[in-house]
Amino acid sequence: MTDEVEIFVCVSCAPRAENAAHLRPGAVLARSLNARLTELGAAGIRVREVECLAVCKRPSTIAMTAAGKWTYVIGDLIAEEHVADIAAAALAFQRSANGIVPWAERPVPFRKGVIARVPPLGFEQHATETA
Amino acid sequence: MTDEVEIFVCVSCAPRAENAAHLRPGAVLARSLNARLTELGAAGIRVREVECLAVCKRPSTIAMTAAGKWTYVIGDLIAEEHVADIAAAALAFQRSANGIVPWAERPVPFRKGVIARVPPLGFEQHATETA
Repeated sequence: MTDEVEIFVCVSCAPRAENAAHLRPGAVLARSLNARLTELGAAGIRVREVECLAVCKRPSTIAMTAAGKWTYVIGDLIAEEHVADIAAAALAFQRSANGIVPWAERPVPFRKGVIARVPPLGFEQHATETA
Repeated sequence: MTDEVEIFVCVSCAPRAENAAHLRPGAVLARSLNARLTELGAAGIRVREVECLAVCKRPSTIAMTAAGKWTYVIGDLIAEEHVADIAAAALAFQRSANGIVPWAERPVPFRKGVIARVPPLGFEQHATETA
């Protein structure tokens, strides 16, 4: 298992009505998130812009992933409100053993905005784990 | 890149109203899918039951993944209608270079039921690719 975390930010998502000033809200989000992570001195967390995570109805969408960890797809995010929470969630995800961060430690947009989660390759279910 | 494909089937999904006879529709789906893949002589495709992919509103949900390929999360699947399509999609996914199967070759439930897709670890966007 590595602690290298990747955050894919969808730059195809259209802006939400209240955020219509940004033609590419995902690109703004990616840039702000990178700045915040740098500010925090975070290491090993890479933000990548990608075309289309296929969650078009809940912009902006990100996917947080790492080798050996559960992947989380989170939607309904906007740079102006959520960058600090996303950075905090990324650090908690990086510290976690398997990508599953205890519910109480998850920023609110990560509780409300979950689109899906996917186990790591080779995962075998032994017992129920918190979603 | 490997051709080992993993299909995670959510067994936490509640049954849809029209399918209420099955208490655990995901388990039924996983079993039927395994049987279908065996019938087809498919190799290197593993079906795993998992607890909760966090897509509770669109049962049943699966995630199809492989090292070096895009992961697809697909919902609205039921064993009685979709097992042949899921098996066909898994074979097309396995044959594909990066997990992105040409639109025309995707079974209809894989066009309509997409919840999200996530790039492989280390992915860098060079050009737009079909969702």
